[in-house]
Amino acid sequence: MIVELLNTGSELLLGQTLNTHARYLGRRLVECGLRISRQTTVPDGPEIQIALAEALARAHVIIVTGGLGPTSDDVTRDIAAGLLERKLHYDPAIFERIQERFARRGLTPPESVRAQAMVPAGAEVLTNDHGTAPGLYLQDSRGTGPSRHVFLLPGPPRELIPMFEALVLPRLKAMGGPPIAVRILRTIGIPESHLQERVEAPLRARFPEVEIGYCARPGEVDLRLIGASADTIQRAAAFAAADLGDAVYATGDENLEDIVVRLATAAGAHLATAESCTGGHVADKITSVPGASAIFLGATIVYSNQEKTRQLGVPAELIARHGAVSKEVAAAMAAGCFERTGADHAIALTGVAGPDPGTPEKPAGLCFIAHRSMRDASVKRHMFPPDRPAFKDAAAQAALDILRRRLILPPGIKEKSC
Amino acid sequence: MIVELLNTGSELLLGQTLNTHARYLGRRLVECGLRISRQTTVPDGPEIQIALAEALARAHVIIVTGGLGPTSDDVTRDIAAGLLERKLHYDPAIFERIQERFARRGLTPPESVRAQAMVPAGAEVLTNDHGTAPGLYLQDSRGTGPSRHVFLLPGPPRELIPMFEALVLPRLKAMGGPPIAVRILRTIGIPESHLQERVEAPLRARFPEVEIGYCARPGEVDLRLIGASADTIQRAAAFAAADLGDAVYATGDENLEDIVVRLATAAGAHLATAESCTGGHVADKITSVPGASAIFLGATIVYSNQEKTRQLGVPAELIARHGAVSKEVAAAMAAGCFERTGADHAIALTGVAGPDPGTPEKPAGLCFIAHRSMRDASVKRHMFPPDRPAFKDAAAQAALDILRRRLILPPGIKEKSC
Repeated sequence: MIVELLNTGSELLLGQTLNTHARYLGRRLVECGLRISRQTTVPDGPEIQIALAEALARAHVIIVTGGLGPTSDDVTRDIAAGLLERKLHYDPAIFERIQERFARRGLTPPESVRAQAMVPAGAEVLTNDHGTAPGLYLQDSRGTGPSRHVFLLPGPPRELIPMFEALVLPRLKAMGGPPIAVRILRTIGIPESHLQERVEAPLRARFPEVEIGYCARPGEVDLRLIGASADTIQRAAAFAAADLGDAVYATGDENLEDIVVRLATAAGAHLATAESCTGGHVADKITSVPGASAIFLGATIVYSNQEKTRQLGVPAELIARHGAVSKEVAAAMAAGCFERTGADHAIALTGVAGPDPGTPEKPAGLCFIAHRSMRDASVKRHMFPPDRPAFKDAAAQAALDILRRRLILPPGIKEKSC
Repeated sequence: MIVELLNTGSELLLGQTLNTHARYLGRRLVECGLRISRQTTVPDGPEIQIALAEALARAHVIIVTGGLGPTSDDVTRDIAAGLLERKLHYDPAIFERIQERFARRGLTPPESVRAQAMVPAGAEVLTNDHGTAPGLYLQDSRGTGPSRHVFLLPGPPRELIPMFEALVLPRLKAMGGPPIAVRILRTIGIPESHLQERVEAPLRARFPEVEIGYCARPGEVDLRLIGASADTIQRAAAFAAADLGDAVYATGDENLEDIVVRLATAAGAHLATAESCTGGHVADKITSVPGASAIFLGATIVYSNQEKTRQLGVPAELIARHGAVSKEVAAAMAAGCFERTGADHAIALTGVAGPDPGTPEKPAGLCFIAHRSMRDASVKRHMFPPDRPAFKDAAAQAALDILRRRLILPPGIKEKSC
């Protein structure tokens, strides 16, 4: 079963919008035993016709996103109807739903939204609970091969996702098979080529049917194993993980913040952060995990020197002597956070986020990360990428990795008695 | 000049990685007067050959990302050389650079990285300062048409971006023309169909050569104007903006956080946040803007009730009486933040982030946002989407919009004397 994804929208090609649909749909399809064999983006307009005709010639399932709205650049519905030779008819029930949506906001829909109530003959209407444009599902049995399934979905993620979950996923699950067995080993600290040299030959020898892939990120490499059966992948992953030891920080979809929240919850440990250069990015990551409220006490974001003193008790003279970006201030921030919040683990970060280059002694990218718990205190100097978003990300990952390592206690040692 | 982007990598289609290259490259190309006419993603492997051959038949400039690494799934270099009929030769200088990179970490490169030192005949090598795989630039003048330009770039963003900036962008600027004039009016509070009804006919009548597009996000719609000359677009944007009034919160690439930092800097106003449900997301957004340190004092992230009392002075009895998610507690958080930090504007948020459904009285999605300054105090009840990331985003946008509106002062009124 060949599946293609066609994303429409000039904003995607002009660099104004990130294509988050491709990631979301790719992941959900794997759970249906399906893989996207090709993803294409074309601008609003006649290019959609060319790309959709090509996809119809190659694939059994085609998911099209975008171009169902009420405005003049929304042409997907008409193009699909034309290619599949279906007449459009007006569905008054759709228009009524749209009217109701507008009425709830005290508005009347303009005439232009009637286009959204046009339905190609034989299409199933996929109700949109979060916007005006309904989705459409067309089955095409012309020709001699297996029938083709075309899903037209709205562009906005908050409309597409609930529609896909409720109305498309069940259909695809029925068409697909058991979920594709994918296992990701997320590793930290080993260059990609070394990782391959270490694991690939033994894996290939023992699990010849497993597909092996790699994906490198700053300081990290994902080892990806894909196979037909969950059991084989399970054994292949265990085999590789045993070799790689604690370089593997996660298997599967877990991020560092998921792991930190999971470990802290299991340990009954409370966390707090004191952040200067990351400006709340560590706290934001931790609190993006459902259930974080049970283990995360809070954070102090201390951008100014005064706030470092007021909120964390960092002595002003310490800042004056060593500078705000220093080992000493990081340690004092962690100590202040630990003492004042009563957290079991406090993490503090101070650094130069860029893009300003900083000074020769304290260049952009420099960061001190301190940790404080009942059991120990540490502070480490890092050099991260000097551009602001990469810096904040890398620093937050490093801070989370410290928490991860501290939360995995050697057997027999308790962080503190509860 | 037709430009296509070909992204390679199974991780993109399995939903493991977000394609950030498409957005980055799309935006940079616009500055060179070029637009991506089609973007395609294919998995690692033979599909690359099919997709690259198709792109070569359609486009003048083809940018390929990924598949240049040292591992077995990296096949882009070989496929491009094959399609362009170039022999590969070994370049010892590339291998030496790779050896140096490894040596800096005290490592020796494995034999497999020699593949990265293979160069197709006639290709220019694009040095990689942030990784081992060099990029490649191939010009193809076979056939009768204009020559084709193929850029092979590494997949990791932190390798691709500096390489593109230094070595590809100047070449594309020379090939392209003046930047394409694009102007985005970011609007808030008007449904997409109403926006079109209001602006499109007058715009078309007056600026028939301008291309009009729309892109909807939760609560927001972008109006996109594209034209040949900067002057026309400038006038068309001013024409539409005059009609839309303060529904337009930005023109161009500025985010709400950029605007807030810019306005606060101009006003000499200092900001601080007190966040419960957003967990630092507002602070993280503000501090992602270069220069934020001059106007952002800091934040208190108070997830627990104790921290609300300790860090912000919210009376415990107030929390007991009204609940942590209440108008009263939001106002007390803002007041505490305002008084303790000395900020000119303090924003406080408390809400139910989901995915837990909450209670009937306080369901997931409920959020109170309070603002406090010398001049006024306000608190407003909101219902945001009940899923956690959308909730945090929508709440942070609403908080930033309050700051934006407060920082745009009516003429003649000063927030406080400086």
